[in-house]
Amino acid sequence: MTSGSAGPGSLAPAGPGRGRRRTTASVPDLVARAREGDARAVARLISLVEDESPLLREVMAGLAPHAGHAQVVGITGSPGVGKSTSTNALVGELRRAGKRVGVLAVDPSSPFSGGALLGDRVRMQDHATDRDVYIRSMASRGHLGGLAWTTPQALRVLDAAGCDVILVETVGVGQSEVEIAGLADTTLVLLAPGMGDGIQAAKAGILEIGDLYVVNKADRDGADQVKRDLRSMLALATRAEGAWKPPIVSTVAAKGEGLDGVVAEIERHHAWLASSGELERRRTRRARDEIEAIAVTALRERWGDVHGRSELDELAAAVVAGESDPYAAADVLLASIQTS
Amino acid sequence: MTSGSAGPGSLAPAGPGRGRRRTTASVPDLVARAREGDARAVARLISLVEDESPLLREVMAGLAPHAGHAQVVGITGSPGVGKSTSTNALVGELRRAGKRVGVLAVDPSSPFSGGALLGDRVRMQDHATDRDVYIRSMASRGHLGGLAWTTPQALRVLDAAGCDVILVETVGVGQSEVEIAGLADTTLVLLAPGMGDGIQAAKAGILEIGDLYVVNKADRDGADQVKRDLRSMLALATRAEGAWKPPIVSTVAAKGEGLDGVVAEIERHHAWLASSGELERRRTRRARDEIEAIAVTALRERWGDVHGRSELDELAAAVVAGESDPYAAADVLLASIQTS
Repeated sequence: MTSGSAGPGSLAPAGPGRGRRRTTASVPDLVARAREGDARAVARLISLVEDESPLLREVMAGLAPHAGHAQVVGITGSPGVGKSTSTNALVGELRRAGKRVGVLAVDPSSPFSGGALLGDRVRMQDHATDRDVYIRSMASRGHLGGLAWTTPQALRVLDAAGCDVILVETVGVGQSEVEIAGLADTTLVLLAPGMGDGIQAAKAGILEIGDLYVVNKADRDGADQVKRDLRSMLALATRAEGAWKPPIVSTVAAKGEGLDGVVAEIERHHAWLASSGELERRRTRRARDEIEAIAVTALRERWGDVHGRSELDELAAAVVAGESDPYAAADVLLASIQTS
Repeated sequence: MTSGSAGPGSLAPAGPGRGRRRTTASVPDLVARAREGDARAVARLISLVEDESPLLREVMAGLAPHAGHAQVVGITGSPGVGKSTSTNALVGELRRAGKRVGVLAVDPSSPFSGGALLGDRVRMQDHATDRDVYIRSMASRGHLGGLAWTTPQALRVLDAAGCDVILVETVGVGQSEVEIAGLADTTLVLLAPGMGDGIQAAKAGILEIGDLYVVNKADRDGADQVKRDLRSMLALATRAEGAWKPPIVSTVAAKGEGLDGVVAEIERHHAWLASSGELERRRTRRARDEIEAIAVTALRERWGDVHGRSELDELAAAVVAGESDPYAAADVLLASIQTS
């Protein structure tokens, strides 16, 4: 599968640009190097994904046979609950357990993406020289801080590169916390005492998405109250027989306390997912969503992207003028795909 | 266009159900009665929209020639800023100006939808007997309290029924505030002093969507500060030459103060929209979005709705198994539409 640095399908443009380092590898070569753990090849592949490179399709086709191994763990929580500290500590704990770890930070306030205090950023350097840890921040392109739509594709890169666990960190506001649950095998919701909005935020939807709740800063006043509140709210949920009951774990991430418990629950959840058939179901649903999103995006481009005024514009103008209605217009649009 | 109560296209099922009052009018008859201001016909049409009735297409086709007159005003703001009180006072002010007014409440906490204090609900009865005011709450079906996707269709009913102004009230959290700006000709953002999150919320996106800012409870401490903050934040926005500069208006809605200023600014904005060509642009964009949403929904149903396992499920399983990738799968899906 690997090929030389300037073979067919090479990233090198013909001519002057050719000598530049980052444009000399072919996609199959990059995939092969990424699978061997070459961090630069991983970085390059994720950049191709992020930039929506014309090579994206080739990248995805090259990765497909090698993906499906990694456990994707989404980490969400309000700002201030210690999300970055927890992610960092969790990386350390997973490394002690011998796992290869990927981190995708899709949180604009994350130290990985440069939004936080220097202190935090320095702390994350713990793992900067560990070649079995790959850390990457993603630009959050969706509106309102949602997950970049390229996130699932970046996950596939890290998966094919041999990560055992991929942590996806995002800020717990609005859309993104629901989106992360759609992407992850296991969703970890972080709470902390002293956050006025801890349980309030929980009410807004977090209680439906967590597979695992972590009460961080458990040495502070109010931690027991947060756990009690959480426990009684979770008890209200109706669950089918045999369904997963989300556990609550306490940590003091800044002191590295309790992370072993988190890793144990992540592993227990993964085992339950696999044995219950839920892992297959979640991954199939995720693939469905991804395929559908790509197909719909392609159609939208086709509908909107004709020289000058597009067919969709014409139809919209007819609706505004009262000459048509949206359903009749949608029929015309759909008929046009079938004959195009 | 009107037909008898049991003609072709009648809502009455053959047989026993036939005598029931709400099933005896044909769609053309309902449309004709709605245009004459019959509130029950309006209610019935909106119910057909909300229930996604099989007659929906006929309803939309029947309304199309009569829509396009109403000015749609979206009203958004955090809970506690006095949104319901303001909407109520605004209805009164618009009535005094001789306008026919529709109110669509898509806010789960709205008194219209039954989520608020009885006191509020009673207060809204001000307009309950006014036949030139039509008030309707919509179930918020989108996830996370977003606007129901049926909202644009309900707007079309009220529009065809002859409303001059339609107020769409929604709670200002996350998605819905952006969605409302997509639906409305004029977006009114409400703020109030003493709400810790007033300007904070504004930062999160409200500053990009408001055509008009209303600082309610202007007789309270802090109102001047809210206005100052708002003014300086709005001043930072870069606007094209000739673009609309969102004004800031003060009100004390509970005492009916300042609403005349709000109505004046709504009218001034409408005049600007019409003269600048922006009204046409916004309405065309809205129709585009609506047509596209209907077409995409139809495709999704087709992809997912085959007996047993759908084509999309098969493709997703192949992606999970590493036999295909999402792009290749999307190609197959798109090819299947063209030949179906």
